Order: sequence, then structure tokens, then C-alpha cells
Amino acid sequence: VIEFSNGVKIGGANRPVYMVGPCSVEEDYSGLLEVAIAAKEMGCQFLRGGAFKPRTSPYDFDGLGEKALKYLAKAKEETGLLVVTELMDVADLDMVCEYADLIQIGARNMQNFDLLKAVGRLHVPVLLKRGMSATIEEWLMSAEYIMSEGNHNVILCERGIRTFEKATRNTLDLSAVAAVKRMSHLPIIVDPSHATGRRWMVESMAMAAIAAGADGIMCEVHNDPEHAWCDGAESITPETFEHMMGDLRKLAPIVGR
Amino acid sequence: VIEFSNGVKIGGANRPVYMVGPCSVEEDYSGLLEVAIAAKEMGCQFLRGGAFKPRTSPYDFDGLGEKALKYLAKAKEETGLLVVTELMDVADLDMVCEYADLIQIGARNMQNFDLLKAVGRLHVPVLLKRGMSATIEEWLMSAEYIMSEGNHNVILCERGIRTFEKATRNTLDLSAVAAVKRMSHLPIIVDPSHATGRRWMVESMAMAAIAAGADGIMCEVHNDPEHAWCDGAESITPETFEHMMGDLRKLAPIVGR
Amino acid sequence: VIEFSNGVKIGGANRPVYMVGPCSVEEDYSGLLEVAIAAKEMGCQFLRGGAFKPRTSPYDFDGLGEKALKYLAKAKEETGLLVVTELMDVADLDMVCEYADLIQIGARNMQNFDLLKAVGRLHVPVLLKRGMSATIEEWLMSAEYIMSEGNHNVILCERGIRTFEKATRNTLDLSAVAAVKRMSHLPIIVDPSHATGRRWMVESMAMAAIAAGADGIMCEVHNDPEHAWCDGAESITPETFEHMMGDLRKLAPIVGR
Amino acid sequence: VIEFSNGVKIGGANRPVYMVGPCSVEEDYSGLLEVAIAAKEMGCQFLRGGAFKPRTSPYDFDGLGEKALKYLAKAKEETGLLVVTELMDVADLDMVCEYADLIQIGARNMQNFDLLKAVGRLHVPVLLKRGMSATIEEWLMSAEYIMSEGNHNVILCERGIRTFEKATRNTLDLSAVAAVKRMSHLPIIVDPSHATGRRWMVESMAMAAIAAGADGIMCEVHNDPEHAWCDGAESITPETFEHMMGDLRKLAPIVGR
Repeated sequence: VIEFSNGVKIGGANRPVYMVGPCSVEEDYSGLLEVAIAAKEMGCQFLRGGAFKPRTSPYDFDGLGEKALKYLAKAKEETGLLVVTELMDVADLDMVCEYADLIQIGARNMQNFDLLKAVGRLHVPVLLKRGMSATIEEWLMSAEYIMSEGNHNVILCERGIRTFEKATRNTLDLSAVAAVKRMSHLPIIVDPSHATGRRWMVESMAMAAIAAGADGIMCEVHNDPEHAWCDGAESITPETFEHMMGDLRKLAPIVGR
Repeated sequence: VIEFSNGVKIGGANRPVYMVGPCSVEEDYSGLLEVAIAAKEMGCQFLRGGAFKPRTSPYDFDGLGEKALKYLAKAKEETGLLVVTELMDVADLDMVCEYADLIQIGARNMQNFDLLKAVGRLHVPVLLKRGMSATIEEWLMSAEYIMSEGNHNVILCERGIRTFEKATRNTLDLSAVAAVKRMSHLPIIVDPSHATGRRWMVESMAMAAIAAGADGIMCEVHNDPEHAWCDGAESITPETFEHMMGDLRKLAPIVGR
Repeated sequence: VIEFSNGVKIGGANRPVYMVGPCSVEEDYSGLLEVAIAAKEMGCQFLRGGAFKPRTSPYDFDGLGEKALKYLAKAKEETGLLVVTELMDVADLDMVCEYADLIQIGARNMQNFDLLKAVGRLHVPVLLKRGMSATIEEWLMSAEYIMSEGNHNVILCERGIRTFEKATRNTLDLSAVAAVKRMSHLPIIVDPSHATGRRWMVESMAMAAIAAGADGIMCEVHNDPEHAWCDGAESITPETFEHMMGDLRKLAPIVGR
Repeated sequence: VIEFSNGVKIGGANRPVYMVGPCSVEEDYSGLLEVAIAAKEMGCQFLRGGAFKPRTSPYDFDGLGEKALKYLAKAKEETGLLVVTELMDVADLDMVCEYADLIQIGARNMQNFDLLKAVGRLHVPVLLKRGMSATIEEWLMSAEYIMSEGNHNVILCERGIRTFEKATRNTLDLSAVAAVKRMSHLPIIVDPSHATGRRWMVESMAMAAIAAGADGIMCEVHNDPEHAWCDGAESITPETFEHMMGDLRKLAPIVGR
């Protein structure tokens, strides 16, 4: 179980946590705030949003950097949500630490061992996404890189693995939830947005994740998905998210959460 | 929605169905009956059991053949459960039809087109398992092979796909449930036993499947898994199954079933 | 080493064999003959051509059946080439045996165990293609199904496996050639056409296959690829094939063939 | 075509280059020198050896660091071979640059974008290994990250992709050679050691790679593979390497190199 400054707990028999927000923080602060307020009202604990975006092509939008971090801080101030955001480069460590309550290590960096060791020397909790083609064993070994440096506050995040299937962006591997629960003491959450890449799959996969025993959900919510700067196809609106939260809240007690 | 002679319905908003039994029917009829009685008491609708087993090696046990079918028929008589069993060869079609209420086409035969066309000329419902490396689109096309011959009573069964992950036998792809619901009118059930190959994963994956919207569960239950002739590592006991059914029954209404 | 009626040998230190022809035999016999004559002139031993085609969709062209077999027999008569063609259904066994010198079992049927056992009871050589997601071990076990019935004349054919890569139709696994040479006594040939699905890759992959130690090449050659009824994108013209054969002939002695 | 200070050229119609040496540089300098001398005698151009090793577990040996770089420099002085070694961390950039003629970016870091951009600001050539589950398109995009910063001296290295097959460590994808030659102007070499993980496959896969059109081979050679600190199972001895070089030299002219 990992506990945050404001008392939020992840893992064990605690209620699932919800981390929502846009894929990347955009220029329009009001859109971010709209999502944050809705998230807070629906009982979420974390606001997510990318400041530094890993992109396959160097010519794609790669994040607003510190400006994005300031926006997240402002939305945190207004809503009380904790902030989770990705760290891509050791050089940005101090800056990201200043704003983040939970530091995300993305799938592409799951075996960037120097980055893992760097966050291992901190005390701030780390959200470690599974690499696109990482076995569960390799993933746990990457968590070990962080913990071996002294930081035991590691949360795992299943976000889909690469397979031959083309109907989804990746293949969500929910058996990883069961496997991690048996092989490790670490909490594990699920990101159905990146896993599927399909907006209309997010709700059913979030339900499945909680039913499988996940400790939380990370999910892309955007005030205007059609015009999102990044990953619009997998982002849901605050309205859809509200509906989903209603179902998830009914589901959690069935699995003892 | 597919309706069986005794009124059981699969699909639509109907309650999920449960198909349980040993991987293969074994010499000891009493073990099969024990499982069937337990299944009936827990509200299951189908007894599953292999009479003809596709095995990677020609030297492995490949089923009791007609004797197994007779055992299934006897257990059906005693419990009222419907019988689902695999057909591997067109030559066995008449024999299998005599005993089966639902004919299973296994993963390895998903693109055995002559077999598909043969069951397409029947009226008995067909359970079409997804091929180990079949895309969802290819799977639907295989269903189309059956339907194009006139038999529209096709039920799909997700049973895991082949990936690089070694912690599970296959990777259960629950996004296939969401995809099939959107791309097709066909009912879809999930087999968490073959998908994971791990007894201790079956319950959480069954829960996830129903939460994802699956129309039912196919699951290996054996009176003595440690001594099962086949797939013991993924078979659960009637006791574990009873516990699982309790949870599944609480879950179904949450997703409107 | 497998020897054919006309003295052609496959395997061991024998020169590589070449099996060429269109994906499917089409209505225009003269096109087939043109390819067969060119193949013969370039020193090929086998004419390939589908009479029964396994197709993902039931609505696609699935072969001319016996008419195609008769065309192949006629081209054999005119050129002396041996005939290799696919058998999909036990029901067609006698008919196909009447015309084929080498019976092909396709990738989709690699674990159609009744078909394997049926050809296992013959004496005619069998070309067993690797299943799309079959491990090398499973593939050898399928060969074992044929051999355990008495027919030891099995030739393996690597034709690409299913992976995440999208630049090719499948991923050609040439390490399978090295693995089979070490794990088995069976000859192995390579099909660069189906493996890549790209006409412009065929020559370099055929060269790589022979360099890796393959006992032969199966390759789609069509007199008019742009208008081929099937798999035109991966078929090469007789002219390209002629050029390729020149290079392959220079290569073989380098690897002791 | 990329040219090095001593006139060695990679790409175009130039003769293939060979980069050999142990997986990691070890304490015993004499073993490294033995391999380097043999490599030089056989006509190789590069000495490879890891100073910083990416390891799945934090508890495994991860390289001798600068000591290893000094050993490589010493062996370079004694043999005239160019040095290629992996850079894992931007923090080590200056140190590695001091010793390396060619900087390797490993498979796990193929999408470590900050590392890519850092080497993109240098003039020293970069060897970019393909990520374990990277598509060819993603790989070329990672090369673009380096080039977009000004460094156009990028050489690609295919080293196997992750698939379901268990007979090899990875699946060597030689169609990537053909694809890269068509989609890009960049040179591409092949690493059969990491691709297969099997010593006895290295020679046939190296032959296949050159036959497919690769611009060179990177290969693990160790004076005493049984006692190698890392990757012994895929390392070959100088004697085996000598034999392989003889065959490769005969092969190159056949493909116009």
C-alpha cells in the first residue's frame, strides 16, 4: 500500500483510485480545468497530463514542458487533485519533482535503467508503465531497479502489449493484474486508453480491470476529444467518464474494494 | 441471441451462461457426474468435455471418442445440462451430432474451412473458438464460413492469443469481447482456463470477462485436478468453482445481465 | 533425403530445388504453361499451383478444383516438371493424389490432425508448411503425426510467422532453417513469397534462405502479376525469376550445394 | 555511405564490415586482445565490447565502465581496429565519446528520445539497434530523431524481434534488411548473436544476412565462451569466427560486394 501526502492510499484492500486527464496538457488551461473539476466531482484522486511526450516521430508535438507542469499545479491548487505526469529525461528530474505527486515512467523507458535508478533515489512515488513488449518478469525487474536504490513506492501500470492484432492499438493483458498480485506486493493499475486506442472500448475494459482486481484506473479524459492535440481517438469526454464512474463505483464492492 | 431446445438463451441482455466440465472425458464416469451435479446445482447450463482432443504430439492421449460422448449423454440425462463437445473431423460429424447440443470448433481448426462448411450445413449451434493467432477480423470471417452455408447459430469463444509473454499459456484478449460486440451481432463467451493455463487466474479472469460484457464463461472444472489426464494445471475444483459462481452472480446485475 | 520418381532429390548435400508457379491455377492455361516452360528452362524441378485455395473470407475465389489439377497435369506432360499442390480436405485426397507428385499441407492446416494422419497413410511425399504461429517444436510434432502413420517422406516449408511488424505480410524466420537442420533429419525449403507478401523482397530473401542452408525455394511466379487472381502483390514475373535463378545458382556452391 | 577516420566505409557497394568482440569487456585484458588480434587478422574493421551493459535485473553484472573503455582503447592502439561500444546514459556521453569511433544505442534505448537527441548533436557515427518490438517504421523514426539534430551518420542494426518462438532468443528479421534498403538511404548491419542467442546459429544467419544485402555483421566472439561473463551461449570462438569469415568472404562477391 502506498500512501500520499493527502491520505490517498493505493493497493491492498483500499478502494480503487482514478487518474484522469488529457494525454498532453494543451495551451487552453480552461479545458484542463474543466476536466479536473469533473474528475474531482466524480471522486477521482489524480489529475494526469503530459508535459513531456514521447513521440515516435521527432516532428510531432512533444509537450509544453514546464508550462504544462505549471498548469497542472494550478489545477491541483483549484481542485485538490494529486498530479501524475511523465518524466522522460534525468535532466528534467528536479523540475518534474517540483510539480508531481507521482512520477510516471513511460512504456518506452521501462528499461531506461539510468532513469529508473535516478527516480529510485527519490522518495516520491513512481508509476512504472509496462514496456510494449516486456514480459511481466522483466517489468518486475525494472521495478526492482527503482527499489534497489531505496525508493519502494512503486506502482505498476498495465497499458497493453504489442501483438499481431490490429483491431486495437495494443492488446490489454489483464492476466498481468492477476500475475502481479501473486508474484509481487506492488499495487497495479490499468490504463485502458493506451491499451485499446479506442474510445468506445475504454469503459468495458475499465470495468474488466477492476473486476480482475486492479488497484485503480488511469484514463484519458478530454473536454473536446475530437480536437485533442494527442490521442483523441482514445480519449473520452467528461460525460462518458461520469457514466463510467457510476458503474465502476457499483462494481468495486463486488470485488471487496 | 441463440436459443436452445430447453429454453436456454445466449446473448443479448440474457444472463450469462456457464459451460463447465473436465478438459477431456476420462474413464471414471463418477468423476464426470460429480462435476456435472455440482455444475447443475450452481446454475450452470452446459456440461463440457472433450471426446476428441487435438494434441500437439501424436503420442499424447487424444480422447475416448464415442465412449466419452456416451458418458456426456448419460450425465446430461441425470442432470439436464446441455452438452458441448469438440468436433475435429468431418468424418465424426454424424456421431458428434447425435450427442451434442452445441458443437465446438477448436482454435486449431478455426480455419479448417471444410469443417466450417460442414457444420454450416447443420442447424445445431456451433461454438467457434478463436485461433491462436487469428485477428478478430479473421475470426469473424470464419464465422461467416459457417453462416454462409445457412447455419446462423454461431457463438464465439475467446480463449487467449499467442504472444511473447511466458507467465501465461496464452494472453487473454478481453478487448475482443468489446470489439465483437461492436462489429457483430454474434454472442461471445470467454474461456479463462485455456487462456491463462493457470488455475489461480481463472476466477479473476472470469470476473473480468463478465465485467467486459461477455455472454458466458467456459471453464475447466475437474473433481481431482492433480490427477486430470489433460490440462490439470488450469482446472479448478468444484469447490473453487462454487465460490467463483457466487461472485459472478453478484457481478452480472452490475453490468445489466 | 527424399527422392522422386524422376530422380529429383531434396535434402542432404543435394542441389537446392525450386518450386515455382502461380498462387492459384487460373482459367487461362496458356499463362500457366508459359510459367512452366520458363521454370523448366531455368532448371526448376516443380510446378506449383493451387487448385483448392484456403481463403480467409468465404466470398473470395477458392480455386478451380479438379480443372486446375488437370491443367497442372497437362503442363507436367509438356515440361516434365513435377507437380506440387495443396490438399485441404480429406474428401479430396484421392483426386489430388491422382495428379500430385508432392502434396502440400497449408499453414492453416498444420494442426488439422486428421488431414495429417490421412496423408500419413500414403507414400507420396508431403510438403508441410509451418503454421502462422506455430513454434518450431509444434511444427516438428505435426510432421511426427504424418510419420507416425508410416509416411516418412516429409519436407518442411518455412513461410513466415505472424508478428507485430506491418511492413511485411509475415516475418520470415530463417533461423527456423538452422533450427530444423539441428533438431531433425527432415529437408526444409523456404517460401519467400508468402513470407514477405512483397514482390521486391522475394529475391533477397530467396538468396538469404539458400545462404542459411535451405534445401530449396518455393516461389510464386506469374506471367502477369498485376492481373493475378490471387496474391499478385507477391508474385514475380518469369523475367525477374530468371534473374534470381542466375544469382541463386552462383550462390549454391558457396554453401556447398 | 558512412566513412570513418581511417578510411573504412559502410554502405553502398562497399564490402561488408565486421564488428566483433565480447559481449562485455572483462577484467582479463589479454582475452580481449586475443580476440582483437584474431579479428584484425581476419580482416575485421571494428572491435566491439560493452563497458556499460543494460541488464534486465539490477543485480546482474553491468559492465566495467571506464576501465572497459580504456581496455578497448588499448586494444585499438595495438591492432588499429575501430571501437564500437554502447552509450546508455547522457551523463556518460563525454566519456564514451573520448574512446568510441562508433557509438551504439542499444535496443532498449531505441526510443529513449533524449539519448537520441544527445547523440544527434555529435558528429561521431551512431549505430542504432532496432528495439525488441519496434516496427521498421518506428526504427526509422528513431534514426530521424538523431538526424533531425544534425548528425546524419546513422547505421542501423537488426538484432532480432520479440515473437512467440522459443527456439531462439529473438526472431531474426532479415526482411528488415530488404525493407530498409528500399525505404531509406541508411546502411544496415545485422547482429546474428543477439538475434538467435544460439552459438550454432550464428554462422548460417551471418551468411543469410550478407546474402540478403546487409552492409555488415556485428558478432560476439569470445576467447573462452564457456566462461564469458555475459551471453556466453551466443558467443563463438576465434576459431569458429575464422571459419565463418572464410565463407563470408566467398559470399560477398556473389551479391556484388
